[in-house]
Amino acid sequence: MHLALWVKYDGTAYHGFQTQPHVRTVQQVMEEAIARLTGDAVRICGAGRTDAGVHARKQVVHCSVNSRVPIDRWCAAINAHLPNDIVVWNAFAVTQSFHARKSAVHKTYVYTLYNAPFPDPVHARTQWHISRRLNERAMNEAAERIVGEHDFSSFCAAGTGTRTRVRQVMRAAVDAAVSADGIGRTIQCTFTGNGFLYNMVRIVVGTLVHIGSELRAVEDITEIIEARDRMRAGPTAPPHGLMLWDVAYEAGT
Amino acid sequence: MHLALWVKYDGTAYHGFQTQPHVRTVQQVMEEAIARLTGDAVRICGAGRTDAGVHARKQVVHCSVNSRVPIDRWCAAINAHLPNDIVVWNAFAVTQSFHARKSAVHKTYVYTLYNAPFPDPVHARTQWHISRRLNERAMNEAAERIVGEHDFSSFCAAGTGTRTRVRQVMRAAVDAAVSADGIGRTIQCTFTGNGFLYNMVRIVVGTLVHIGSELRAVEDITEIIEARDRMRAGPTAPPHGLMLWDVAYEAGT
Repeated sequence: MHLALWVKYDGTAYHGFQTQPHVRTVQQVMEEAIARLTGDAVRICGAGRTDAGVHARKQVVHCSVNSRVPIDRWCAAINAHLPNDIVVWNAFAVTQSFHARKSAVHKTYVYTLYNAPFPDPVHARTQWHISRRLNERAMNEAAERIVGEHDFSSFCAAGTGTRTRVRQVMRAAVDAAVSADGIGRTIQCTFTGNGFLYNMVRIVVGTLVHIGSELRAVEDITEIIEARDRMRAGPTAPPHGLMLWDVAYEAGT
Repeated sequence: MHLALWVKYDGTAYHGFQTQPHVRTVQQVMEEAIARLTGDAVRICGAGRTDAGVHARKQVVHCSVNSRVPIDRWCAAINAHLPNDIVVWNAFAVTQSFHARKSAVHKTYVYTLYNAPFPDPVHARTQWHISRRLNERAMNEAAERIVGEHDFSSFCAAGTGTRTRVRQVMRAAVDAAVSADGIGRTIQCTFTGNGFLYNMVRIVVGTLVHIGSELRAVEDITEIIEARDRMRAGPTAPPHGLMLWDVAYEAGT
């Protein structure tokens, strides 16, 4: 049976999604859980390789399993073998050609900032706290300028080897709202694209925070893109504010 | 200087607010932080004694300190000595007569349920997950019936010694909404009263969940109140869904 699973996780306790030697990763913990459920060693593949400390609302993984568990019982069955910080919330039987990463049409990441004089202890794991008041309108204007097809080398961690650094961003928006507890402001930065370079969302957010802090002008973002130079962009935002929000596939896959 | 502090905390790692022997409490950790800041041993008093695992958005504490730190620098100064799960987000110089508990006019507690087939790993510390679909309209109707002045013995942990178990509930409401991640439903139970008995909110919520699960009728709540018997009410909801939301004082205090 070829499966697609939708996975939500709190990435705080993991060294990212993808298996690496000597550290605990989401992939490894999920593979161990599937092995306990099915009795077979299984390799899973995720749509996005979230970094250490990054969270997911809807990470999509695929795997092939021998399992007598009916598909509508799969979530409950696998969750019984997973720790509390990883939850499978949807499971589908898919065709053999389905590939979580290669079949994806676009992905959405959401980066959450908490903008208030003092941090929020209850949501500290999932928000980057910024105490100085941010100008979210300037941030949104700058975000709009990254929409389109660009060479995003300026927003790519140094030393990353990829064939091309051209990516298409379909949506980039910054929205501010009063936080749910009424104390501060939550600023969400949402990015939808056909692919993202290594650390791209976090470097864009670090740059937007510089612009929101009025350390830099909105117009600078265009110049930074054109420079294709990592040194021109702002700092890399910390991982814990980032969440892989959604992965979209063509209808019928 | 007589101080009032507004404190938000994630209660997961604490055995409640109030100091007890051999366990870590919010009060103890705050007193230690104030001692490091001011150099003096200080006793603080909180408006509400939250239980182990219960959170606070706005716990109010008072204390008298000898401090040269100006009042507008107090939050930042004390936060530098506090762990990340306790944050002081407002500080006021108040008159000597101000007492965090005795001067309070009413308190508001919010209990959050997460109603979805599978739990949310990101908010697992602050929501009680209920997988069966709850009827929030029935819960709200039942909640409305506890508004008013009643002897709440049926909703008081056995063996609690208090002068009277009559309390006034000014507001009790159940509101459901799609959760922020769009996956499940968040059901918030809000209670405002002039005082709450030991475990009262958690027993009311346990009873409302029975009603929302259609194990009991809405009308039963009236009978349960009238019985003044803990055995008639539902189970005590777990602590982690509960948050001390607000403490109100008369204007000018």
